[in-house]
Amino acid sequence: MPRYKMIIEYDGTPFSGWQVQTDATLTVQGALERAAEAICGEPIRVHGAGRTDAGVHALGQVAHCDVPKILVSGRFRDGMNAHLRPHPVAVLSADVVADDFEARFSAVKRHYIYRIANRRANLAIGLNHVWRVPKPLDVALMREGAKRLLGRHDFTTFRDTECQAKSPIRTLDQLDVDQDGEAVTIRTSARSFLHSQVRSMVGSLVWVGHGRWTPDDMSAALEAKNRAACGIVAPPDGLYLAKVDY
Amino acid sequence: MPRYKMIIEYDGTPFSGWQVQTDATLTVQGALERAAEAICGEPIRVHGAGRTDAGVHALGQVAHCDVPKILVSGRFRDGMNAHLRPHPVAVLSADVVADDFEARFSAVKRHYIYRIANRRANLAIGLNHVWRVPKPLDVALMREGAKRLLGRHDFTTFRDTECQAKSPIRTLDQLDVDQDGEAVTIRTSARSFLHSQVRSMVGSLVWVGHGRWTPDDMSAALEAKNRAACGIVAPPDGLYLAKVDY
Repeated sequence: MPRYKMIIEYDGTPFSGWQVQTDATLTVQGALERAAEAICGEPIRVHGAGRTDAGVHALGQVAHCDVPKILVSGRFRDGMNAHLRPHPVAVLSADVVADDFEARFSAVKRHYIYRIANRRANLAIGLNHVWRVPKPLDVALMREGAKRLLGRHDFTTFRDTECQAKSPIRTLDQLDVDQDGEAVTIRTSARSFLHSQVRSMVGSLVWVGHGRWTPDDMSAALEAKNRAACGIVAPPDGLYLAKVDY
Repeated sequence: MPRYKMIIEYDGTPFSGWQVQTDATLTVQGALERAAEAICGEPIRVHGAGRTDAGVHALGQVAHCDVPKILVSGRFRDGMNAHLRPHPVAVLSADVVADDFEARFSAVKRHYIYRIANRRANLAIGLNHVWRVPKPLDVALMREGAKRLLGRHDFTTFRDTECQAKSPIRTLDQLDVDQDGEAVTIRTSARSFLHSQVRSMVGSLVWVGHGRWTPDDMSAALEAKNRAACGIVAPPDGLYLAKVDY
């Protein structure tokens, strides 16, 4: 049975997250599995690189599945896209890979983007796709706060209490804060992230940007290794799983 | 009566264009006028810098209106935004200007952006906000074709047959084509544009990008001064009125 690696874009707004649920709840994984079943005529399990929460988007989620048919090049991708309509999910590519490829376990780095609109006016374009933060942000302070989180640490403070990972230790490779007019974009990458880690870091960075926390407070929060020491958790709207490296 | 200049962002998707209509059709101007009336307690006419078609967006449309009350700074803007909900229209700023300011006639330059996604897969993010062009585009050829339109010309070929402007002569100051991965962005500016001019130029540039037209064909189309010589008209989805200069 050929194994396909798919690169997937989705608008997380209408979905209750990535992970398939036992009831009729609309999930990205569920939509993909129904499309694959429609093509193959039998149930197909789709395995993602990571579970995104409700409302979180993806520009480059990766998933694999085993398909009981040999399909000519491009046919599986186009068939998936045809069956996925009208859901806002697009299979950007679907290529046959080695049988030992695992979307989740073979990944060596994950990249996320978090988009903030630092403006007072409500959003006409970008609603549900960016976090509007009305009060001005000091991006230089945010960059200083971000530096404190780089490297290998116990990220218990920035981890959802429901997180099921065995260890709270992660190595954060990148946490950049860029500004272009009202747009503040945070780019972060690591081999893997804890549950809600990106949104917890972003929400805490916004506290730094507002002067509510100093960069030293960010270090203290990290060192506390205590979920109660976290700032706010940013909403899912601005978060995009951008890319997964293998 | 103080005259306010508003800078306005909107998602054109749900609107039948800018211009207010006699029936109950939803228009951007109509939504703004109803919001202004709710604040002022009497009918208010809102005058835009330009009429955008159905489905066309704005990042920086400009409009003026005369308001029978003196409102403290920021109050008119915030009130408009409160009354505009749930429509995807945001008043980014509203400032008192001189009585002779006219959003349409005082404008010295208009800037539009047209966004293309040059990809085969359907759009999950950006649906209605970008034109998906599946076949690969040769951007170098598009740039060469774009150069042929710069300057002062009779743009009859690139003008909707319904266009009401007295003269088809316009001076095109900018028509840039940029590429970033699958994103192809066209930026154009002029003192003013004819009806459907940007979409007609973009559609014709896509023909050049596909090799269906050479850059010389673009010159010939311009010189024909005949609407029938136009390429295709790009859909409204990708078009944004970005900025108006005064």
